[in-house]
Amino acid sequence: MSERGKLIVVSGPSGAGKSTVVFKVMEQRKDLCFSTSVTTRSPRPGEVDGREYFFIDPERFQQMVEQDELLEHATYVSHSYGTPRQFVEDKLNAGINVVLDIEVQGARQVSEKMPEAVKIFFAPPSLDELERRLTSRGTETPEAVRGRLARARQEYAEADFYDYLIVNDDVEHAAAELSAIITAEHCRFHDRAEILRDRR
Amino acid sequence: MSERGKLIVVSGPSGAGKSTVVFKVMEQRKDLCFSTSVTTRSPRPGEVDGREYFFIDPERFQQMVEQDELLEHATYVSHSYGTPRQFVEDKLNAGINVVLDIEVQGARQVSEKMPEAVKIFFAPPSLDELERRLTSRGTETPEAVRGRLARARQEYAEADFYDYLIVNDDVEHAAAELSAIITAEHCRFHDRAEILRDRR
Repeated sequence: MSERGKLIVVSGPSGAGKSTVVFKVMEQRKDLCFSTSVTTRSPRPGEVDGREYFFIDPERFQQMVEQDELLEHATYVSHSYGTPRQFVEDKLNAGINVVLDIEVQGARQVSEKMPEAVKIFFAPPSLDELERRLTSRGTETPEAVRGRLARARQEYAEADFYDYLIVNDDVEHAAAELSAIITAEHCRFHDRAEILRDRR
Repeated sequence: MSERGKLIVVSGPSGAGKSTVVFKVMEQRKDLCFSTSVTTRSPRPGEVDGREYFFIDPERFQQMVEQDELLEHATYVSHSYGTPRQFVEDKLNAGINVVLDIEVQGARQVSEKMPEAVKIFFAPPSLDELERRLTSRGTETPEAVRGRLARARQEYAEADFYDYLIVNDDVEHAAAELSAIITAEHCRFHDRAEILRDRR
């Protein structure tokens, strides 16, 4: 069946292991890709335009916002980031499922522009476990860890519009759940109902 | 995670291969069973009470209807059949997913009594293929086949309240889709949201 891809929004605290799980599923199925964002920041050494990001200037970014060419956007400190609608549409039309890894506020924006997006929240097994994971990275100060934990609590409180919740206690298990959700979403009655009308 | 099971309603024309697909999934996962119906007809040789059916008399059946002990029921010719609510509830509470293989009208009744039921419609790849399957059984007169095809068309027209549509063009593929749907439905945000509140 040549079906349109699904837009898969994934959110959850840093340390929930979202990307690890998505990459694990990508090893198993070819119909999945990450979205590539636009950003106004400069490329870092080794970054390639169109691979890590589409690097654009602030004027073009502003134009994209005004012309509704971004599914969501946000500004952190002095740089802006956004999800280009056309990139996503092209992939979906080619039958590829597109993963957007964005924060809860961005997910809400996407949800308004594309209500058919499948929204999945990733959580670590517990906040204690999240604290352990963040601390064991060795790259975060105790204060930064406390900040991330507070942020996680706030995201939990705002997450009730997500469709699915994956608790990442085990990468293989979480990947199996993510893959099952993608497969199941392609079985939605109203996506396929044409079959009952057309086929004789 | 000790989760409540899901009630899985499957419907679709005779010849869509529903039971074959469900049995295939049962080989792969232990958390799935068929519901056992009550019936007022007599046991046939070899049938065991509580295995093929719970055999009950018409008075008890009528009492179950009146006391809302059946999730759905129907009468064919002179015998009545129904799905006992308690049997289903006991399995769900034990974490077992229960499959009800019932017609569209019964599915509508179940849907009203248990809105959380997951409703899956099975279709053959085409009505031409359905005709081939029914004819090749060698047990149906051409007139009976025509009747079944007309019935399939009618079910198609009434099926728009189902959640999922599985087109059984290949048993392995259809079984993978059914299993994915069951797994995905256990990932529903609101079934698991307690995790975000409880776990520290």
